[in-house]
Amino acid sequence: MTGPLPRKPRSDARDNRERVLGAARALFSADGLDVPMREVARRAGVGPATLYRHFPTKRALVAEAFADQLHACRAIVDEGCADPDPWRGLCLVIERICELHARDRGFTEAFLSAYPGVAELAEGRAYTVKAVAGLARRAKEAGRLRSDFVLDDLILVLMANKGIHAASAAGQVAASRRFAGLVIQAFEACPRHAPLPPAARLASAGPAVGETGSTD
Amino acid sequence: MTGPLPRKPRSDARDNRERVLGAARALFSADGLDVPMREVARRAGVGPATLYRHFPTKRALVAEAFADQLHACRAIVDEGCADPDPWRGLCLVIERICELHARDRGFTEAFLSAYPGVAELAEGRAYTVKAVAGLARRAKEAGRLRSDFVLDDLILVLMANKGIHAASAAGQVAASRRFAGLVIQAFEACPRHAPLPPAARLASAGPAVGETGSTD
Repeated sequence: MTGPLPRKPRSDARDNRERVLGAARALFSADGLDVPMREVARRAGVGPATLYRHFPTKRALVAEAFADQLHACRAIVDEGCADPDPWRGLCLVIERICELHARDRGFTEAFLSAYPGVAELAEGRAYTVKAVAGLARRAKEAGRLRSDFVLDDLILVLMANKGIHAASAAGQVAASRRFAGLVIQAFEACPRHAPLPPAARLASAGPAVGETGSTD
Repeated sequence: MTGPLPRKPRSDARDNRERVLGAARALFSADGLDVPMREVARRAGVGPATLYRHFPTKRALVAEAFADQLHACRAIVDEGCADPDPWRGLCLVIERICELHARDRGFTEAFLSAYPGVAELAEGRAYTVKAVAGLARRAKEAGRLRSDFVLDDLILVLMANKGIHAASAAGQVAASRRFAGLVIQAFEACPRHAPLPPAARLASAGPAVGETGSTD
């Protein structure tokens, strides 16, 4: 009774955990973060007790479901900031972040709303905002980013990117790429550009972004 | 029994009809067009029989709920097309259409999906697409609109505009104005512009747009 038996429950537990995470990601992406825990359990084909054993709270589930995306998000801003050309670095961040979000709209919602109490999301967003603020300041100094760009414009772009729907995942990414290309050209400093309408404070972006809403 | 009595039912009927339309607009805007008819009746505070007496089908309700916006949409494209400067006319169309849709996201969904069987929506969209196609062609000929603009880019913008959420109706319109300003600058022909990633075919826009997806 001490041989291979203990392994099976551990493997089952791992399977269940992955099934729950897969179900949570699919539901969050399709229906947003308001999906009830019982719905996640149902989709994953596990009982509520199993779900709560792995993820005692919705917060824990949300944090774990988006851990990979948060990691990818940090890697993107690190790569952008490391570029010696700040404008090229900022373009890379816009393109790659739009694509990341196009692949998972649930993540956009989690990222923009900083689902209450999920420290990982709040930290990931604060990290991104701080890094992009520095990059944007340097791109303005280099004369490549328009001087009236504010960080809320990036929130605007993420929200807008979330609104784009295509029939397939590949179409979604293609549409988002086209959109990011247009956004980059709108942000690029150009002597022919007229002044923009005033920047909008986007409440759902929360104080973390508002506090550093200007890159001046 | 022949005096004022007949008036009361007629006035009640008018009230009920307006209540149903108000409830339908609010629900379509918040939750999309999938809202069941019984939910519209409940929100309006009328019985299903009353609802179906005024609007025998969901199609009839959708058509009537968005009649004002469709009218406004036609007026906007007519005004844009009448401008002797096609680029200025196109900018007006983009700004005003974004604002119209920012005020009612349910209309964007209805407009983009052309809710099946609602001839008014399909006609309104076809009218808009045809008018904007002509305007865009003239703006390209005048050298003001970038040559790689396609009509699907306008669908992309409407979808993106729908993704923008602010805490208040006024904030929503302000954010949408900023967004339209950015979009216009992205669309404006500029010798410094790099080529865009390929245009995406947006399936939910349906064949009416796809058929005239190019303005060349």
